[in-house]
Amino acid sequence: MSTRNVFYAQSGGVTAVINASACGVIETARAHAARIGTVFAGRNGIIGALTEDLIDTSQESAADIAALRHTPSGAFGSCRYKLKSLEQNRAEYERLIEVFRAHDIGYFFYNGGGDSADTCLKVSQLSATLGYPLQAIHVPKTVDNDLPITDVCPGFGSVAKYVAVSVREASFDVASMAKTSTKVFVMEVMGRHAGWIAAAGGLAADADCPLPIIILFPELPFDQARFLARVDELVKTHGYCSVVVSEGVRSPDGQFLSDQGIRDAFGHAQLGGVAPVIANLVREGLKYKYHWAVADYLQRAARHIASKTDVEQAYALGRAAVELALAGRNSVMPTIVRESDEPYRWHIGEAKLEDVANQERKMPRDFISEDGFGISEAGRRYLLPLIQGEDYPPYRHGLPDYVRLRNIAVPKKTATHFALK
Amino acid sequence: MSTRNVFYAQSGGVTAVINASACGVIETARAHAARIGTVFAGRNGIIGALTEDLIDTSQESAADIAALRHTPSGAFGSCRYKLKSLEQNRAEYERLIEVFRAHDIGYFFYNGGGDSADTCLKVSQLSATLGYPLQAIHVPKTVDNDLPITDVCPGFGSVAKYVAVSVREASFDVASMAKTSTKVFVMEVMGRHAGWIAAAGGLAADADCPLPIIILFPELPFDQARFLARVDELVKTHGYCSVVVSEGVRSPDGQFLSDQGIRDAFGHAQLGGVAPVIANLVREGLKYKYHWAVADYLQRAARHIASKTDVEQAYALGRAAVELALAGRNSVMPTIVRESDEPYRWHIGEAKLEDVANQERKMPRDFISEDGFGISEAGRRYLLPLIQGEDYPPYRHGLPDYVRLRNIAVPKKTATHFALK
Repeated sequence: MSTRNVFYAQSGGVTAVINASACGVIETARAHAARIGTVFAGRNGIIGALTEDLIDTSQESAADIAALRHTPSGAFGSCRYKLKSLEQNRAEYERLIEVFRAHDIGYFFYNGGGDSADTCLKVSQLSATLGYPLQAIHVPKTVDNDLPITDVCPGFGSVAKYVAVSVREASFDVASMAKTSTKVFVMEVMGRHAGWIAAAGGLAADADCPLPIIILFPELPFDQARFLARVDELVKTHGYCSVVVSEGVRSPDGQFLSDQGIRDAFGHAQLGGVAPVIANLVREGLKYKYHWAVADYLQRAARHIASKTDVEQAYALGRAAVELALAGRNSVMPTIVRESDEPYRWHIGEAKLEDVANQERKMPRDFISEDGFGISEAGRRYLLPLIQGEDYPPYRHGLPDYVRLRNIAVPKKTATHFALK
Repeated sequence: MSTRNVFYAQSGGVTAVINASACGVIETARAHAARIGTVFAGRNGIIGALTEDLIDTSQESAADIAALRHTPSGAFGSCRYKLKSLEQNRAEYERLIEVFRAHDIGYFFYNGGGDSADTCLKVSQLSATLGYPLQAIHVPKTVDNDLPITDVCPGFGSVAKYVAVSVREASFDVASMAKTSTKVFVMEVMGRHAGWIAAAGGLAADADCPLPIIILFPELPFDQARFLARVDELVKTHGYCSVVVSEGVRSPDGQFLSDQGIRDAFGHAQLGGVAPVIANLVREGLKYKYHWAVADYLQRAARHIASKTDVEQAYALGRAAVELALAGRNSVMPTIVRESDEPYRWHIGEAKLEDVANQERKMPRDFISEDGFGISEAGRRYLLPLIQGEDYPPYRHGLPDYVRLRNIAVPKKTATHFALK
């Protein structure tokens, strides 16, 4: 039985654990050398395939591949590059097959979110049309947690842990200062379309550690008067409060709050930054002293405080992708199937890509508390297992010892130069 | 020999390790029960003394006091309340002595920065004038790292570690995205007057892990053209770069950059936020896609990634304060004395408060690289030992198990109500 090679690529925004999936793919492929040849990675994601810029992962040591498990970011480079539809740009898909044929790629592993699942589906279909045998398998990844079917998307659990830990720590800080200084702390988190990450801020408080926290979800229109009344109530009761605001919060007219207020000295709208908008409302409306933070990339890159559960799932899904390939599957995605909340038990399942692509999972309304400013018990039951366990990276000279691979290019075999659109 | 009680208070901005100093004070006092009575803590710092709102720490269990060592923030509450000068408000100092007399306080431990050292000095002098025997000892604390004589101020090492780790992680993230998306990441850090914290961003890169990082120090006037040229050069060479900007960076005319640009829709100046100003300059001047983060309280509250060296020093200084008191000292501050850089060796020394108060330590120019955008080897030699070692808190349900004390009030003994100014 002849071996065929693997193409693996990382797509879209990177996470603290996408490299753990890469580690799972590569280690599992290496363990099946009798059936799987070399794992080639796309440099900068799918662009690496289109431009035939492949990385030969067989030139990385076992130790360096193992270190991917504790290294955040995308070790081979990612990209924000959405393949057009088959109708619009069939040439892109044909080019992929051309490059795959040149390097005897039999397995296509695409590690990304919803758009990537759609690309992966199209690639899986086209290979049949073009008479080129290829198994296309999607490895789920996204901090947005918006893929359907799977219990959770790798990357989300670690962002959730970062946010929960940070909000707890900052709340302790504000509580200390509130008597004479800061009374309201505002922290902006990611989530343009869904409040999964903001919801994680609610985990900062629990029965053992009650803390006054308000969450502003993108699912609910921002009601300024109710918000300020709630802040005022919490400050009057507890002396302080923390506000976790999703970047995607919108005013009742549907505008992003982050887009509507802030201008620079020249009158240009500033991109991003809903935290200062909220903080300013608190200042104008209530005269309370405030501080604000915008975590931005820090939240999704924070491998130092990754969720052990998340790391294990990311690795397991990478391994499962290879195992599905070995089992002859095509056009599928391995998933996390939840068996129970507490203790959290899960196993690997399988979804058809046609059921995954172009489906966005929304956060259920019943994960949000009735007043709209916190998480419900159902939300907590869902979220809490995902942040369990710590999985610290090794340190060297006081800093996490993250690996930087050699990323040696594979010699080109096609004569064609492919111009990106 | 009769025992006398302790008054301990936390002052100014809190840190990830000020409670470790509190732990050192209380555990050491408890170990000398034959000579030291109860440790009373001021609720919300010195305000607790002025209003006779004392906390009886003897009602906390040994386990809870031990847990202070791994709990960020100020467990008894801090305050931003600067006592006026003796000439301006002698009544405040007399009130302190009145409350101390009522509770038989023989030891005054004040845990704070430069202003607090000055207050501590005045209290130590006044007690003699008023014929009330009191030993006043200052316990150093400040993320600003601006106290003289001591090698470092507890709290700084942990902020430095947080910043170095975060900049490394975010730099890995941007490197992954740069091909088609974000090329410049801007992170704002604390340091209104000195660049100690910004300098720590330089530790993110080292010989094992070279990363393109630009630091903007408050010590040097911001030169927009040179800055943009440097960003452009790094992006052209490496594909991306990270910028660490101190909140205190000023334009050549002396204005804070954070104060001069951003206005809300109504034209009001926005407080804080130099990161978006810098990011906007990059967008306007170079058209590069950017992301920006403002760490704010997250950086100083991040006990989850505290420097072990910092925690040990914070505890040791709390313990030393009590030992100095037992040795009969007054009007002093225990210090960290550096013996060697590598391996880092240090011991506890002692400084007179008159040499500490109203002295601000600046960062030496030779800690900054010649081009002004990074740290020098001298700066690295100074900084690197301070972030060594991890000292993880215990976790419970996926979150750091920080202690919240009972903070039981001591019955009042003075009839006077003292009105704060």
